[in-house]
This record gives sequence, C-alpha cells and structure tokens, in this order.
Amino acid sequence: MSLRYAILAILTAAPLTGYETAKRFEGSVGHVWHAPDSQIYPELRRMEAEALIEGREERWGSNRLKTRYYITAEGEADFRTWMATPLKYAPWRDVAHMQAAYFEWADPESVRMHLEQHAQHYQEQIDQWTSQVRDIESHEHPMIAARLQRYPAEQHERIVAFKSFAYDGLIRLAQAEVDWANRGLTLLEELEADQTP
Amino acid sequence: MSLRYAILAILTAAPLTGYETAKRFEGSVGHVWHAPDSQIYPELRRMEAEALIEGREERWGSNRLKTRYYITAEGEADFRTWMATPLKYAPWRDVAHMQAAYFEWADPESVRMHLEQHAQHYQEQIDQWTSQVRDIESHEHPMIAARLQRYPAEQHERIVAFKSFAYDGLIRLAQAEVDWANRGLTLLEELEADQTP
Repeated sequence: MSLRYAILAILTAAPLTGYETAKRFEGSVGHVWHAPDSQIYPELRRMEAEALIEGREERWGSNRLKTRYYITAEGEADFRTWMATPLKYAPWRDVAHMQAAYFEWADPESVRMHLEQHAQHYQEQIDQWTSQVRDIESHEHPMIAARLQRYPAEQHERIVAFKSFAYDGLIRLAQAEVDWANRGLTLLEELEADQTP
Repeated sequence: MSLRYAILAILTAAPLTGYETAKRFEGSVGHVWHAPDSQIYPELRRMEAEALIEGREERWGSNRLKTRYYITAEGEADFRTWMATPLKYAPWRDVAHMQAAYFEWADPESVRMHLEQHAQHYQEQIDQWTSQVRDIESHEHPMIAARLQRYPAEQHERIVAFKSFAYDGLIRLAQAEVDWANRGLTLLEELEADQTP
C-alpha cells in the first residue's frame, strides 16, 4: 500500500500523465520508496478504479490523446487518513549485517570486498540524497517548484522543511552504514595482525 | 535466498531439530533477519531435498522419533560460496522517511505521534540488540556457547568479534533513527512557534 501513498504524494504537487508520474516518481519520492514503472502503471489504474485519482483525456500532438491523472477529494482524504494513522514497523531484515555476523566463514579478502562494497553503496546513496536536499532547499527541484506554486506561501516553510528533514535522516543513516563498514575494515586488520605469528 | 543462509548459519553452530531451528532462529539470527516459523519449516525441507542439510531421525521419549538436521559438506560449501559472493543491494524503501517527506499533510499531533512512535520502535530495537551484544561478548548466548565449543580456540576471537561488530552496527543505525525522530520533534516545535501569530 505504500506505493499508493507515494503516488498520491506526487500527485498532490501536480496532475501528471502516467509517463510523467513514472518519471517524476523516479526523480523524487522514488529516492525513498523505490518502485519500477511496471508497478506504477497498474497501481495508477487501480487508484483510478477506486476514484482516488481521476484520469482526464487531453490532446497530444495533432490527433492523439493522453490521460492526465488528477488527485480527487477522496484521494486527498485517503492520503490525510494515512498521514494520521500509526505505521506498522516490519521486523528487521538486513542481509549485510546478517552476513557480517558470520564473517568468520569468509576469507579476509571476501570480508574486505563486502565491507568496501557496503561503504561504496551507501556513499552513492549519500551523494544522491545530498543532491536531492540541495535541490529541495534551493527550490530548484522540479517537483518542489510545482508544489510551491500550488500551495500558499505560508505553507512553503513546512513543505521544504519536512522534505529536507526526511532526506537528512536518510543521509545520516547511510553515513552510519559507511562508518560501520570502515570500522569493520579496521577490525579486520586487527584480527589479521593477531593471527600473524 | 537470504533465509537459507540464515538457517545454514545457525546449523554451523549445532545440528538442530526443526523446532529447535525455529526457536534458535528467533533468539539469534532472527534479530537481524526476521522470519516466521511458517517460512522456516518449508525452507528446511527444501534444503534437505537439495542435500544442503541431512535429517537424521532420533528417538524422542519412549516411542516417538524426531528429525535432527545436520549441515552437510555441500551445505558448508554453499555457505562459503555465498560468503565470497558480492551482495545485491536492493533499492531503498523506507515508509517512515517517505511519509515524513510529506508531513505538511499531517496535523502537528499526527507528526508528533509518528515521530514518537519511530523513536520508541528503534529504542526497543536498540535494547534488544544491546542485550544480544552483551550475551555474545560474555559468551552466555546459548548459540555462541554451542558454536565456541565446536570450533578451535584460535577461531573464537573472530567468531565473537564479527557478531559483536554486526550488532554494534545495527545499534548505531537504530540510534540514528532515534536521533532523527528527536530532531523532527524539535523541528515541529520550531514550525509551530513560527505559525503562532
């Protein structure tokens, strides 16, 4: 169900065609809730069937039509209800930490490979999210620009502050992952030194 | 497939019956890779069919039998291969941060509720993992005790160090989540103060 709310979230900024929804998704909320196009299109159709969004046909080029999706009053109400409902936290599942707990089964080169890969993966996430925060705070992000245009000025501070806050949290989590991997590389060296006769 | 490796991991410490596997899972690797019993039993059967583990019947009580699963040489080889193979990182999906990015759609009481719930959830995780680390480092954890008995003394330092390292990483991640929620509560107060005329 989270995909539905991620889609509703971006449609509160602007009505979008299916193609635009997929593209904008990837460039905004998709950084926090990843979903492939193959999930987005069917979900849009289900949401339309449930009247959370309304598709309106518009002319495209000389003699073709495309559908643009508008969030409905019911869609907004559903989004607000979700916003007022406690989340259910899924039990923890983290394969990298699970594997690390049994690293005595890996040779030192493999441990190093895993930890370096871990640090690199999360550094890439940090770079991506940092660029998002920059575009959000400068209002240069296309979705933020569209959103700010749509809502009254007195709401702008909250809109930007919460997005910035959300990405900042992700950046610090990813930094904790990078730091962990680096501590692991130090630990590995210490263990290797202990084993050298 | 991660479930399979989590099960192999605990069977490297001791051969276990299906019931014991489910219980020991919950009390050890299940803190990092959660799986319900309903997934564990069928996976054990698949693993036996693929000869990664071998079930041996043993007498239980006066005239009943139960099956105890032993990791096979093939199972150990499969586990080592996994340990030497780079992980595939799934794209990010985090509903709490996704929702927070659109908190302007929630009233302040709901934002507070979400952030307090978030802090509480991760504080509980910290408490759980901290207790695991304590039992691991003191060798009092039943699975650690069984494992250390099984492997030569020169491997004990690595066995304990990597488990401790894995849980320490999780604790710091959860602490970053608690800190984030607390920063959010401060942000909320600031935004509320700004709006008071």
